[in-house]
Amino acid sequence: MADPDFFQKSKSFSIAEIVEITSCEVSGDADLILDDVSALKDAQKNHLSFLDNIKYKSDFIETAAGACFVLPEMVEYAPDGVVCLITPSPYKAYALAAQAFYPDDAPKAQIAKSAFIDESAKIGSGAVIGHNVVVCANVEIGDNIWIEANSVIQHNVKIGSNCRIGANTTISHAIIGDNVHIYTGVRIGQDGFGFAIDPAGHVKVPQLGRVIIGNNVEIGANTTIDRGAGPDTIIGQGTWIDNLVQIGHNVKTGRGCVIVSQVGISGSTTLEDYVAIGGQVGIAGHLNIGMGTKIGAQAGVISDIAAGEEYLGSPAMPKRQFFRQVAALNRLIKKKKRD
Amino acid sequence: MADPDFFQKSKSFSIAEIVEITSCEVSGDADLILDDVSALKDAQKNHLSFLDNIKYKSDFIETAAGACFVLPEMVEYAPDGVVCLITPSPYKAYALAAQAFYPDDAPKAQIAKSAFIDESAKIGSGAVIGHNVVVCANVEIGDNIWIEANSVIQHNVKIGSNCRIGANTTISHAIIGDNVHIYTGVRIGQDGFGFAIDPAGHVKVPQLGRVIIGNNVEIGANTTIDRGAGPDTIIGQGTWIDNLVQIGHNVKTGRGCVIVSQVGISGSTTLEDYVAIGGQVGIAGHLNIGMGTKIGAQAGVISDIAAGEEYLGSPAMPKRQFFRQVAALNRLIKKKKRD
Amino acid sequence: MADPDFFQKSKSFSIAEIVEITSCEVSGDADLILDDVSALKDAQKNHLSFLDNIKYKSDFIETAAGACFVLPEMVEYAPDGVVCLITPSPYKAYALAAQAFYPDDAPKAQIAKSAFIDESAKIGSGAVIGHNVVVCANVEIGDNIWIEANSVIQHNVKIGSNCRIGANTTISHAIIGDNVHIYTGVRIGQDGFGFAIDPAGHVKVPQLGRVIIGNNVEIGANTTIDRGAGPDTIIGQGTWIDNLVQIGHNVKTGRGCVIVSQVGISGSTTLEDYVAIGGQVGIAGHLNIGMGTKIGAQAGVISDIAAGEEYLGSPAMPKRQFFRQVAALNRLIKKKKRD
Repeated sequence: MADPDFFQKSKSFSIAEIVEITSCEVSGDADLILDDVSALKDAQKNHLSFLDNIKYKSDFIETAAGACFVLPEMVEYAPDGVVCLITPSPYKAYALAAQAFYPDDAPKAQIAKSAFIDESAKIGSGAVIGHNVVVCANVEIGDNIWIEANSVIQHNVKIGSNCRIGANTTISHAIIGDNVHIYTGVRIGQDGFGFAIDPAGHVKVPQLGRVIIGNNVEIGANTTIDRGAGPDTIIGQGTWIDNLVQIGHNVKTGRGCVIVSQVGISGSTTLEDYVAIGGQVGIAGHLNIGMGTKIGAQAGVISDIAAGEEYLGSPAMPKRQFFRQVAALNRLIKKKKRD
Repeated sequence: MADPDFFQKSKSFSIAEIVEITSCEVSGDADLILDDVSALKDAQKNHLSFLDNIKYKSDFIETAAGACFVLPEMVEYAPDGVVCLITPSPYKAYALAAQAFYPDDAPKAQIAKSAFIDESAKIGSGAVIGHNVVVCANVEIGDNIWIEANSVIQHNVKIGSNCRIGANTTISHAIIGDNVHIYTGVRIGQDGFGFAIDPAGHVKVPQLGRVIIGNNVEIGANTTIDRGAGPDTIIGQGTWIDNLVQIGHNVKTGRGCVIVSQVGISGSTTLEDYVAIGGQVGIAGHLNIGMGTKIGAQAGVISDIAAGEEYLGSPAMPKRQFFRQVAALNRLIKKKKRD
Repeated sequence: MADPDFFQKSKSFSIAEIVEITSCEVSGDADLILDDVSALKDAQKNHLSFLDNIKYKSDFIETAAGACFVLPEMVEYAPDGVVCLITPSPYKAYALAAQAFYPDDAPKAQIAKSAFIDESAKIGSGAVIGHNVVVCANVEIGDNIWIEANSVIQHNVKIGSNCRIGANTTISHAIIGDNVHIYTGVRIGQDGFGFAIDPAGHVKVPQLGRVIIGNNVEIGANTTIDRGAGPDTIIGQGTWIDNLVQIGHNVKTGRGCVIVSQVGISGSTTLEDYVAIGGQVGIAGHLNIGMGTKIGAQAGVISDIAAGEEYLGSPAMPKRQFFRQVAALNRLIKKKKRD
């Protein structure tokens, strides 16, 4: 059960209510009342759980949960008495149900006395602004903004409605859409790494672009997004970015991209829609990564990638080639041992 | 000599006092008085130094130090007149001696006027709380806390005694033990990277766990530790974490683990006790890394590792296999050149 | 055109003025007046652009710019009517011109009321100090400092003239030169990762050095620079460091080094002058990297490198060897397919 010190549960749900939220099919006792969500291993009779990663199938077989979101082909493994909520997307169904049990907990509208809000700034209704927040001249913010303590919004930044900005964050030179969640310690809008190399002293190139962030974007803790050098840096609608990611100047991501922790994307590279990038990947500058491409963790991408490809390795190559290399290396070692 | 602007020395020490602190054996003049600690190269007659890394043996042979912690087998290389303080752990002995010369310098108990401390928060005796610190509702903190300027402790966080929290740090959803040192810019307790991928818009999975941190943990600057998704994220007692490390949701580390800078550990992976991880290593999710495992810098771990193993490479493999691969590749190149 | 909400243009420039600033040679109509700088693709008749990366040659051939910095060998590809500003360093010339169009925009000298400045601190003339900035005891700062909101300068730190320190930054145990630009969220001067490993509890080694930063250094957002363990950590004059870089204790960089995002440099390693390090490179401790060395992105350096070398791969090797390895691996795969 979620620690009530940190999480507030809304109420209990009937199976019927869960079905309405998640559009799944029921196999079992439709009258059950569910009091909470829980992992398969820890779940009790009045809990709702899910099986998404096949690695946890044995946990499912032994679960004490009352109900469980599952793929159709898993129903046969359900323990007696467990209600199966059948769906092609158990994890998504669980996400929606868990959101119903634990809705977002924005505090009541309130602006801390120690916050500095420039008189020229425009802020919509329902704002929650924490201690020592700084909102500079000509900033424009929509309704229901939540800015946590000690964050800084520099002059002329525009932010849409229903956004949340974590503590100790800095934003400048940016235009941000609606429903954007920026985590703690994020840095947005600082100068890109642009200069002419010169032994007498590198010469700074003024960074004259902005950061444009679409709706429904998430940006993880301590991530850095540099502003453009002339063109803008653009984060497309619905893109999710994890912690400690570096986005260079002029980078463009499409819709719905997923960028895992500690990835670095060099300047002027474009990700088309739905690109998924594993942790610690590096992508060189001035490249185009096609729609739906998947790039495995720690890969080093040094050339364009066509749509729909799966790349691995450093330098990165198509997945099949990567595994052939791994196999070839293993044969080589074995051959040596036989020699 | 340490710059007195930044470091305050306690006093001089006799060899006898040093022996009492470090339990080493003396070879040489036991009457020497030592006024400071110093590196072998810079040390003077009244300084205490150490030889731990064999790479610096030539510095030892030429040192002007008055006394030096050494392994038994190094005594024969000591210059005339250098007192050898013989120990199986010269670096640990030096650490203890240096702590005696330069004890921790927490300022006098004082709470800055600009700090915001919610009236429901409970803070023990001896607190040092810097300017613009924010301590939210129902926070509970033990004795001798030291929170540096502009840090934010969100509601209901619990922190033990004798902890130090660096400037510009954010902590939420966490229960923290005693003697924990959290550096500047650390982010603890934010949402893990949990969502169901969906082309119509990824669906957030509420992150309902906490971060539990044991006693005697160190967490380096700008490191990020996400809270659990349902289970907790757990940092075991005595684990040391360097700067810019990413710890995903539900990760568990055992006791005494060492995690070097820029490592990323993906969600739901467990490190057993005394695992040591080199810089920039990535570890995939849902893995178990056995007790005492050593993982070399930049490795990419994609499968469980048994206790006591040493792994290298990306994808990571046992050390011996890695070096055979390197050798095989080198032979391959030479063969080509001969062809 | 740069968004006037964020960037203020100084004035228009004649070709003659641009030539004076950049020392280039003119081919074409010397009477043109230029109103702005712009990328080749977006440029209009009254704009100044540049061609540096050959990848964008086709943009040059089709540009509508009024004038363009180019290499001598590119003049023949210029579209009719485009004034060529011929120079061996088009990017540097563009940098200087863009600086003239968009000079640095430090606000008027002003110290926010909410800033805490210890009465023992000494600050030169022309200071801009933002909201909630904390400047502790005995800090000494030169003229024209600009410290953005919510940053913390710990006791006894010394900073030269004409420096800019971004928001939410922390600096301790440091001596910083002139014309240094430290970005948002940077952490300078915290303890290095120094301890003696011990199963009974790792023993901290007091970190008794400082961070010394030369003139004209840039340090990117959320980068961490640990102070020395006894010796100092030193960043040489004119070194440029990108975002999310980790610099360990006792590291020394020479003049004019370039360190791209997410690089990690382990303790006690020295970079000589003009070393250039690609993104996500890791360098082991106690190494010497010779003058002018280039290290490719994601390389893992585990041994000294002589001056002027170019290294790639993990473990890193000379560039030629790396590409031979890549080629050998590809042959190996093809051979297998033929078998």
